[in-house]
Amino acid sequence: MAIDNIPESQCDVLIVGAGPAGLMMATWMAHCGIKARIVDKRGTKIFAGQADGLQIRSLEIFDSFGFADRAWKEANHMIEFCMWNPGSDGVIRRSDRVPDVPVGLSRFIEIVLHQGRIERFFLDNIKKYSKDAIRVERGVLPESLTVDASKCDDHSPDSYPLTVKLRHLTEEEATPAQSNGSTIQDGLFRSNLADDDTDDLIRVSQGKEGTSEIVKAKYMVGCDGAHSWTRRQLGFELEGEPTDYIWGVLDIIPITTFPDIRMRCAVHSAESGSLMVIPRENKLVRLYIQLTEIKPDASGRADRSQITPETILKAAQKIISPYTLTYEYCDWWTAYQIGQRVGTNFDHKSRVFLAGDAVHTHSPKAGQGMNVSMQDSFNLGWKLGLVVKGIAQPSILKTYQSERRRIAQDLIAFDHKFSRLFSGKPAKDIMDAEGVSMTEFKQAFLKGNLFAAGLSIDYGTSMLVAKPGDAAEQGDGTDVSATTPVVGNQHLATNIKMGMRFPSFRVLNQASAKSVEFQTRLPSDGRFRLILFAGNPFSSAQKARLEAFCAALAASERLAPHVYRNIDVLTCHSGKRVETELLRDFPEVLRPFDSKTGWDYESVYVDDQSYHNGFGDAYANYGVDREMGCVVVTRPDQYVGLVAALDEGGFGDVEGYFDGVLV
Amino acid sequence: MAIDNIPESQCDVLIVGAGPAGLMMATWMAHCGIKARIVDKRGTKIFAGQADGLQIRSLEIFDSFGFADRAWKEANHMIEFCMWNPGSDGVIRRSDRVPDVPVGLSRFIEIVLHQGRIERFFLDNIKKYSKDAIRVERGVLPESLTVDASKCDDHSPDSYPLTVKLRHLTEEEATPAQSNGSTIQDGLFRSNLADDDTDDLIRVSQGKEGTSEIVKAKYMVGCDGAHSWTRRQLGFELEGEPTDYIWGVLDIIPITTFPDIRMRCAVHSAESGSLMVIPRENKLVRLYIQLTEIKPDASGRADRSQITPETILKAAQKIISPYTLTYEYCDWWTAYQIGQRVGTNFDHKSRVFLAGDAVHTHSPKAGQGMNVSMQDSFNLGWKLGLVVKGIAQPSILKTYQSERRRIAQDLIAFDHKFSRLFSGKPAKDIMDAEGVSMTEFKQAFLKGNLFAAGLSIDYGTSMLVAKPGDAAEQGDGTDVSATTPVVGNQHLATNIKMGMRFPSFRVLNQASAKSVEFQTRLPSDGRFRLILFAGNPFSSAQKARLEAFCAALAASERLAPHVYRNIDVLTCHSGKRVETELLRDFPEVLRPFDSKTGWDYESVYVDDQSYHNGFGDAYANYGVDREMGCVVVTRPDQYVGLVAALDEGGFGDVEGYFDGVLV
Repeated sequence: MAIDNIPESQCDVLIVGAGPAGLMMATWMAHCGIKARIVDKRGTKIFAGQADGLQIRSLEIFDSFGFADRAWKEANHMIEFCMWNPGSDGVIRRSDRVPDVPVGLSRFIEIVLHQGRIERFFLDNIKKYSKDAIRVERGVLPESLTVDASKCDDHSPDSYPLTVKLRHLTEEEATPAQSNGSTIQDGLFRSNLADDDTDDLIRVSQGKEGTSEIVKAKYMVGCDGAHSWTRRQLGFELEGEPTDYIWGVLDIIPITTFPDIRMRCAVHSAESGSLMVIPRENKLVRLYIQLTEIKPDASGRADRSQITPETILKAAQKIISPYTLTYEYCDWWTAYQIGQRVGTNFDHKSRVFLAGDAVHTHSPKAGQGMNVSMQDSFNLGWKLGLVVKGIAQPSILKTYQSERRRIAQDLIAFDHKFSRLFSGKPAKDIMDAEGVSMTEFKQAFLKGNLFAAGLSIDYGTSMLVAKPGDAAEQGDGTDVSATTPVVGNQHLATNIKMGMRFPSFRVLNQASAKSVEFQTRLPSDGRFRLILFAGNPFSSAQKARLEAFCAALAASERLAPHVYRNIDVLTCHSGKRVETELLRDFPEVLRPFDSKTGWDYESVYVDDQSYHNGFGDAYANYGVDREMGCVVVTRPDQYVGLVAALDEGGFGDVEGYFDGVLV
Repeated sequence: MAIDNIPESQCDVLIVGAGPAGLMMATWMAHCGIKARIVDKRGTKIFAGQADGLQIRSLEIFDSFGFADRAWKEANHMIEFCMWNPGSDGVIRRSDRVPDVPVGLSRFIEIVLHQGRIERFFLDNIKKYSKDAIRVERGVLPESLTVDASKCDDHSPDSYPLTVKLRHLTEEEATPAQSNGSTIQDGLFRSNLADDDTDDLIRVSQGKEGTSEIVKAKYMVGCDGAHSWTRRQLGFELEGEPTDYIWGVLDIIPITTFPDIRMRCAVHSAESGSLMVIPRENKLVRLYIQLTEIKPDASGRADRSQITPETILKAAQKIISPYTLTYEYCDWWTAYQIGQRVGTNFDHKSRVFLAGDAVHTHSPKAGQGMNVSMQDSFNLGWKLGLVVKGIAQPSILKTYQSERRRIAQDLIAFDHKFSRLFSGKPAKDIMDAEGVSMTEFKQAFLKGNLFAAGLSIDYGTSMLVAKPGDAAEQGDGTDVSATTPVVGNQHLATNIKMGMRFPSFRVLNQASAKSVEFQTRLPSDGRFRLILFAGNPFSSAQKARLEAFCAALAASERLAPHVYRNIDVLTCHSGKRVETELLRDFPEVLRPFDSKTGWDYESVYVDDQSYHNGFGDAYANYGVDREMGCVVVTRPDQYVGLVAALDEGGFGDVEGYFDGVLV
């Protein structure tokens, strides 16, 4: 069926935009085996500049897909945050040093690496897991979107409610002009190419330039940035205001006497504005520089044509004085005006979704933008994947807006406060009510740190999170309450919080004695996980509880068909490793047999001393009783859905939870 | 100049053989920027089986080239070694568990990964660092070697003492028949291919098949295996004897009730021989199985045609009884007879060298073969590189045989003892003088562990190692003593032993507070390193000593031209990080200035508490006085050349050391 001879095809999920949010979405599609397409109007990937901070939670997510190690190896690691403020003489001096992220939160810390490398890791991972089936189609622009409302509730395999017309741009159209009007990026970025990026410079012509096509899709995700075409088609708005703070950004190799140039720094000068130092990979440093001399006009927008690398550098020199600052090499630069906005809707009829900058914009300095954007589609991807495959109920898709719009609102509140403290003039003394108190700034930084690390995310109650309370109130107002609510027993695992990500501590593989971060056993493969904290296997009462639970699991008509297919099962016991034996001491459902490959040796773990990696003390750290244990259900994104007892009642909770989620 | 119309070309170093020893050599050539060629008669790389154990020191070496992380991620990690022996009833039971490698030796432990993956990492690294200039030329066989003795002492740039005729094999010649006569490897190895290996299956025809060429070379390295063509051309021998122990090897996914199948195990049965379990990557396990029923004939050789995977499995089943053992999937198998032999010569006129199996063969079970082979060429590569570039004196090439033949002799002695203990029948009781005492076996294992880890290597005194004693006695008998010997002061750094590898402890970067393993700052880039343990920078006497030493270094006509070019300079002080400032507290030579990129922030470190990685306590662990410090010289291979005082006398020792080494 072709309209006007335009070729027509079908796909399950169409992703518009191949920045970090779109690439994260495509990564999920690859790992879930979904028929998806991803298009981007730009002709090439990013090679320099743009976003660069990776927070702890993003690294945990990368690790769940298998590429955190690449980022960890190439990036610069942020260790210390130094605060520089004017002394009573008005001269800046270091007033404080604190760890850049709180100690002991995760095996990762915040790192910095330019967006081009991060896109490279995504592209390689998508290629590997989709077996090259999903490729970013560059130079492709959506031109029209039609939603057939009558089909939106029809989840049969051949129902395609969305019709999208795509246009393949010509080479000229796909090559954007330098938005900053400078020759620096163009002049240098090719010399800055990594080896494995070279192929992407050669744009493969597929003979489609200038033509159009029709795509029939089940779902569509608009990851198409702050000026989102998808958002405009749906008629949704971004709500919020620009501010009058204007900032310049320089990615340079600095030549400076400033002693903390390899630390993350916030520098508040007495009269010349503020500056943030972000040391980067290789010898690069990113400077965020407040441009106090450039003011917005009556419309609230600043004239960006006044801004050049030279004007930004001059502003930086004033702030950082008496230290000297120059450079010979500039990798990238830009300027921006902070605006804090959140989308009114993230979701249209559970068929078209918006993610990333399309639904929230804010200042980049807290290193949140790319992270929150990627985490939007990390939240959505598995839900779409499981619904497309007919495994999960379509109602779970509503939790995307409920969970992520609430996060965006929290982010904007955080950014609003942090930006004001960072952009404001330092208080001269405690009588200076207009100025920003540096004590307040430090407190806000420390308090915001957990949020900024991405580890304070706490999704509200829903059919996916079995915690008490009101679903609308805990989310963005969307009703996502379960039809037959299950409420878990949080006190059985005081540090495995329902709604939050499953934290990681070291445990040992029972069969090999290898010490692993337990979270690494929760890869992003689209499966829920039932984690049995089996307690002490040498207490006969506990052993009976464990066996009864496992017998119920193996016999359950509702759960057994999903076990290991859609619900992975992991065990962690608290006995002594050397006194325990996998085949002797654990029921078969915990270490299943395969006639070709024998028993499974990767599912049972123990909280015991290791030879080389110390003692994870996982039960204590997870807040689980070493004798009695408990049961935890994690979602495919590692967020905790349920904590229940390892007994008949708990088994009922587990069944009830999955009744509300799986088909 | 062509002989009989055969094309002729020149290269600095010709490497024959592209197994692990040859690839390590080529890696050095790539990192040193040497014009080298590497040829191999096989048509493709290895894809399964062969050697698989990587000891700690090999991983440290991989890390120095930048690819240990790939091996670490893909490999199986060896945690525990379990010993199984017959009880008084003759039934095997676990008699002991010990850590597979001693705890606390290194950031690495022993890992297992098949040789094909290790070759892949080498090939990728060679490609990257040589910018594709060095490629393995497969299906190429040397046919003749002529050494022009009159040119061997001529080190002028256009002196090429070696003439080698190479023949490019036809496709048929380059594809070896399956040596084990089985279809298993052929039938399965393609399905076992890693993604990044696929390209290597397509052999690029260069139109040279069946033709010959002449190569004029300055140096040649024969890494061409136990039947080395190069060794035979030189008329050198392997000395030693085969034994009558015959072993089978199976790489399988086992289906077994044996509880320790994911541990490294030595199983001594009462009457049926011994078996070693090596758990591998994915679900594979390698079993080394003693074939007691197959005996050598009068010539001392066993008839290998009797041996099939089925006969090996049956032997294993007897040993491991009463546990069951079968498999559905076999990845690779082979059989071998242990022979322990060492080459009479490793070096011909300092122009042709032999490395790896070409000069030592022994049993594979202690996981030494591939490791010692790679370490041969790791020892030789930088020496050749620096001599070719005219940086080092040609006399240092003699240390290759002195250092590595001695190691091979030690290896054979170790293997002889370990093999006898492993292959012998267990003693029935303490009165059984014929049988092997299991206590003795355990002691030998523990004692051999440091050796097996590759960390006990202690090169003798020479112009490269400034320790006291007799050079011939400490090596293999070759005279490698320095013309004007320098003797270092070992007591100034009691755990940085001259002749041994520089150990690694965590230190912090002064400028960024990042915690790093200090050894990672000694990459294999062909440079020596002068490591200043600067002591306490806040003692004025110590500060004066440091400044005097640095002033002498900056002013030295002999050393200054080499500083940072051929001799990297690293500093580690013992002050408080937060009280110290890089630009204020350290002389310029320790953090040099570059007009394009500013100051160097990667050369000064501090032994202090970190936020996330504890306290390395490096001074205590290195055995260096926190006040007074000392100076250490490491060779480009991380072995310690000199320990000296941080004073005038010590500076003289450093000058004297380099006088004996550099041109």
